Amino acid sequence: MNSAFLTQQGMGIALTAAILGLVVAAILIAKILRSPAGNDRMQAIAKAIQEGARAYLNRQITTICMISVVLFVLLAILRDMSTALGFLLGAACSLAAGYIGMRIAVLANVRTAQGAITSRQKALQAAFNGGAVTGLLVVALALLSVGIFWFVMSRINPQGAIASLIGVALGASLISVFARLGGGIYTKAADVGADLVGKVESNLEEDDPRNPATIADNVGDNVGDCAGMAADVFETYAVSLIGTILVGALTIGFGAPVVFPFLLGAVALVASIIGIIYVNVSKSKPGNALMGGVLVSAVLAAIGFWPLTHALFPDGIKVDDVLTGKAAAYSATGIYLATLIGLLMTGASVIITNYYTSTEYSPVRKIARASETGHATNIIAGIGVGLHATALPVICIGAAIWLSYSSAGLYGIAVAVMAMLAMSGIIISLDAFGPITDNAGGIAVMSGLPHEVRDVTDELDAVGNTMKAVTKGYAIASAGLAAVVLFGSYFVDLKHHLEANAATMHLDPAVINEMLSFSLRDPQIIIGLFIGGLLPYLFSAFSMNAVGRAAGAVVQEVRNQLARRPGILKGEDVPEYGACVDIVTRAALKEMIVPALLPVLAVIAVAAVPGGMKILGGVLVGSIVTGLFMGISMTSSGGAWDNAKKYIEEGHHGGKGSEAHKAAVTGDTVGDPYKDTSGPAINPMIKVVNIMAILVIPIFF
Amino acid sequence: MNSAFLTQQGMGIALTAAILGLVVAAILIAKILRSPAGNDRMQAIAKAIQEGARAYLNRQITTICMISVVLFVLLAILRDMSTALGFLLGAACSLAAGYIGMRIAVLANVRTAQGAITSRQKALQAAFNGGAVTGLLVVALALLSVGIFWFVMSRINPQGAIASLIGVALGASLISVFARLGGGIYTKAADVGADLVGKVESNLEEDDPRNPATIADNVGDNVGDCAGMAADVFETYAVSLIGTILVGALTIGFGAPVVFPFLLGAVALVASIIGIIYVNVSKSKPGNALMGGVLVSAVLAAIGFWPLTHALFPDGIKVDDVLTGKAAAYSATGIYLATLIGLLMTGASVIITNYYTSTEYSPVRKIARASETGHATNIIAGIGVGLHATALPVICIGAAIWLSYSSAGLYGIAVAVMAMLAMSGIIISLDAFGPITDNAGGIAVMSGLPHEVRDVTDELDAVGNTMKAVTKGYAIASAGLAAVVLFGSYFVDLKHHLEANAATMHLDPAVINEMLSFSLRDPQIIIGLFIGGLLPYLFSAFSMNAVGRAAGAVVQEVRNQLARRPGILKGEDVPEYGACVDIVTRAALKEMIVPALLPVLAVIAVAAVPGGMKILGGVLVGSIVTGLFMGISMTSSGGAWDNAKKYIEEGHHGGKGSEAHKAAVTGDTVGDPYKDTSGPAINPMIKVVNIMAILVIPIFF
Repeated sequence: MNSAFLTQQGMGIALTAAILGLVVAAILIAKILRSPAGNDRMQAIAKAIQEGARAYLNRQITTICMISVVLFVLLAILRDMSTALGFLLGAACSLAAGYIGMRIAVLANVRTAQGAITSRQKALQAAFNGGAVTGLLVVALALLSVGIFWFVMSRINPQGAIASLIGVALGASLISVFARLGGGIYTKAADVGADLVGKVESNLEEDDPRNPATIADNVGDNVGDCAGMAADVFETYAVSLIGTILVGALTIGFGAPVVFPFLLGAVALVASIIGIIYVNVSKSKPGNALMGGVLVSAVLAAIGFWPLTHALFPDGIKVDDVLTGKAAAYSATGIYLATLIGLLMTGASVIITNYYTSTEYSPVRKIARASETGHATNIIAGIGVGLHATALPVICIGAAIWLSYSSAGLYGIAVAVMAMLAMSGIIISLDAFGPITDNAGGIAVMSGLPHEVRDVTDELDAVGNTMKAVTKGYAIASAGLAAVVLFGSYFVDLKHHLEANAATMHLDPAVINEMLSFSLRDPQIIIGLFIGGLLPYLFSAFSMNAVGRAAGAVVQEVRNQLARRPGILKGEDVPEYGACVDIVTRAALKEMIVPALLPVLAVIAVAAVPGGMKILGGVLVGSIVTGLFMGISMTSSGGAWDNAKKYIEEGHHGGKGSEAHKAAVTGDTVGDPYKDTSGPAINPMIKVVNIMAILVIPIFF
Repeated sequence: MNSAFLTQQGMGIALTAAILGLVVAAILIAKILRSPAGNDRMQAIAKAIQEGARAYLNRQITTICMISVVLFVLLAILRDMSTALGFLLGAACSLAAGYIGMRIAVLANVRTAQGAITSRQKALQAAFNGGAVTGLLVVALALLSVGIFWFVMSRINPQGAIASLIGVALGASLISVFARLGGGIYTKAADVGADLVGKVESNLEEDDPRNPATIADNVGDNVGDCAGMAADVFETYAVSLIGTILVGALTIGFGAPVVFPFLLGAVALVASIIGIIYVNVSKSKPGNALMGGVLVSAVLAAIGFWPLTHALFPDGIKVDDVLTGKAAAYSATGIYLATLIGLLMTGASVIITNYYTSTEYSPVRKIARASETGHATNIIAGIGVGLHATALPVICIGAAIWLSYSSAGLYGIAVAVMAMLAMSGIIISLDAFGPITDNAGGIAVMSGLPHEVRDVTDELDAVGNTMKAVTKGYAIASAGLAAVVLFGSYFVDLKHHLEANAATMHLDPAVINEMLSFSLRDPQIIIGLFIGGLLPYLFSAFSMNAVGRAAGAVVQEVRNQLARRPGILKGEDVPEYGACVDIVTRAALKEMIVPALLPVLAVIAVAAVPGGMKILGGVLVGSIVTGLFMGISMTSSGGAWDNAKKYIEEGHHGGKGSEAHKAAVTGDTVGDPYKDTSGPAINPMIKVVNIMAILVIPIFF
């Protein structure tokens, strides 16, 4: 297979792989649908959850569509129609990914509960395959949408195609911020509210049907952890793909550098399918089976990338270095090393987050021990763990940037990110696994299945907690790297723009060079770093407050219901589940808008001031720096608090009902918005900042 | 008064003002000593606190001295003797400032308690004057030590004098980190431990003598909030002064630019003395009297700076711009504007922090309201407030950088910082006021004074809480700005170094220029930003964990004592206070070392790798960016939690003993290490990073 052939046919091969992914997903769906869906009571409860989730998502989609229409019109006027169309495509696919994630999860949850009656193996398979379907569909959707859009656009107008890809990226990222925030606020307001009155005040178990907030809580798992997460991963995948295309096309040229990321995705997709099969046939313990699947996929991808890279780049690449502007050459092996670094980063982020959030290691146990001395020491310990957990990932990210840059320049960093993201297919399978088992447990309890069933789902849920934390570590690490690539794209694109308009703008090369110096010696850059650093802080402040407020409203409602109708706690009266669903729905839709628009408006505001071009450079990097730290520390603290509670529930430090357990529930509750609302929403947010900056170049500068 | 005369005699004038400050301090001390020191029981308790504080500080000083000797030897070998001597001077003065702060506080606390028996006015005066003595002594000490050192060194070897000033700065900053950390861990471990068992488990009031941790808690106020704070402010003042001298001497020249910061300090010191007199004669409410004093000082300083600036710089200044390298000229009015910006920043940081942490405004009330729904919502609300509270200060800092840079270049930023810090004399008076009244309340309760006395000290304590939070806002804002100046010094000094050694290092100007580009386009800079950003995170993780661990040990000890000797709670048996004092002493001394050395070792490690010079540039700025945000958010959250509890104790949301109050105590406890250990220690830490970078230039590059 020679380079020219691969370059010409690469896109076709990649799209074929994507279609293969769809076929496997269809087979898995059929397999899920074939497995028994439980008795009438279980199906009734599952239906209530499904309807709640669908009702919420429909309203969320309506709200987002209205905002998207406004943005579409603005983009069409201020930029051009192809960018605006790209935006619509990205937005639509991001919404679709979320919707698919939710639909699959609500099919799989009741079947997981039913499977748990028979065996742990069956429950594991149902939950994992539910996640795998989402993983495969999201990846296939990203490859297909970006691929077809690029194929069409690059034939109409190659230069404009690149610009319009930015539209796709913005659509994907912005809608993902909305989905993450809306879903995150929904799920955690319901969860926190349900826990605070249910567990702490009334001593109800998780998912007790007497708790008026329990349906809202279970709906939340689907709209937040499944739909929000699927939109987020679609976004990360699509944006990394687009970032690599951008850097490749702008610094090297069209052809092989543009096709390469698609083929990386294709190879990894096939590897992921094999990994999924491995998990389905594995007889190991749940945690080991899942990790085994990831390992199989990663090793196969690493093997597959070697011939691919050498076939596509027989003579390596020649680029003008972004930093020095001098010519530089990198070999195919260098590019291959960059892909390996991406795979290793995946492994590193999984192992590190696992260490900080699994019940097996000292950080979680330290939090559990600190719970013995009360609520406050539990919180202090959890915050300490989160702060500490930033160290290794950040050092790894620094090393990855340096090694991949040394191996293949800025394109090398982009390739490393793409290789990392190429693993999403199997990684999302792990992530979606958590909420599906969580829901299955809920259905089991609410439909009065025997305790042993709950034990099985609880065991899987603990594994799911770690997996969720692990995939969040992966998501934020990859987002940090992807954002660095986007910042590189901002610089490259800005340079092209200034050079192209040098005559009309009366700029000579020396002036352009100074404008693009982005030096830390420049106070404007320092100011930009401060402003950019502020964005994740303000964004998290808004979203934390939103969850706090909405959860408070849920608590009041639940307290009122329990006080008004004492029969509920005795099991003689049925709570009004709908009231809590209503409260969180309204709160989520209202509260997601301001923080989601914050990065958009901030970039526009900065771009509009004199010197905005430089300040914006600082803003982009500033948002990446603080965003990365906040994202990692919030998701790690949250995961660790959650599992510290689980560890105590296993019987340590006094077990369930002890004072230590109450303190651990407080920590878990604080961790909820940390790990499921603010923390993960930072990923798409910092990308929106960086994409918006690229988008406004021709408008403001 | 002409420029030449002022330049020649300026140092003498500044030192005379410093001596005036000492005289006023002596008068205030005499006044404090003359006021009655209470009955025998009060004096016995005060004595116990004094002895505990002295014993701890002596051990802390011993530990720090051993570390200092090692560093002195290393500096003498690796740099030169004058830098090493400077280090010793800075370290000794920083230690002395802390010791003085503690000594005065333990004299003033019992007299404040005694004053509260007579009138609120007397108590306010005793506490405020105690703080004012510390303020005046610290400022005078800084002016005298830096002034005399500079005077002597610049006569021996003008070029070497600048280098050795860096030694003074390092000594001051590093020892201040130790003092802040040691004292902060001590005070908060004792406080958290005392609260957790005392208030939460045994329903004891604050400072109940039956609580075995109560003496340790009161000792902590003195070694942490008084000694640690005094060392910190000495450091900030001295480093700002040194930073301004550096930037002035290196970018403009010796003479007026070097004398100017001393004279700014002198004018503001006189203005502060007048402000202190104002507070002493004012008949307003405590909060208003204190704020009035600050306002009087600031207005007088603003008036005094005008003739000073114009007399010293009749023709303005001419500099080579750090960014472009081109010549730039700024007028005296421009320089004066920079001083005004510094004063306005002081005002802005006071007003903003006051908004976020005073019981009068919505942030604190929101936390209080969230306490009704439990521990977790209290924590979520408090974290949200802290995140939110970063926005306005950071925007103001950005504006201050931009305006002062536009007015007078990098020197303008330095002058703004110096003008801001020049207000320390009066600002520390406010800060020390808090722990002194806190201690006075403790003495009142423990010595069985009537409840009305405690009411007076409680009222003053609430004012003190806000003042403490406000001065922390001021400290971190000024530290952020000062660190930016130090980063500028790093660049300027590095440039001088490379140019001086261009021949031996075979560097041509183009290469030097590229080495000093510090461009965000350079992956090494991005990596540096990540590593630098990590330092405040790791540093806080260590210190939070240290407090959590030590507090846990205190809780265990108190529980053991109460269980072993049930007579204690009945008031029939006296607790062993010494056991808790021992625990926190050992913990503080042990735990302060690793985090305090972290910034030192990190800079050395980065400098030692290839490309370290550039990466280090990123590290410096990265530590400032995340450090600023963490510092502001931690101190704001902490202050807000503390006052939310106070607000509930005033009778809102159920008042003392309610469930909301318990939740608020949890928040307050979490806030303790936030606002009194990790948060404020970040200020000197980011300066150590920046000073170390300047220091290693001739060693590694």
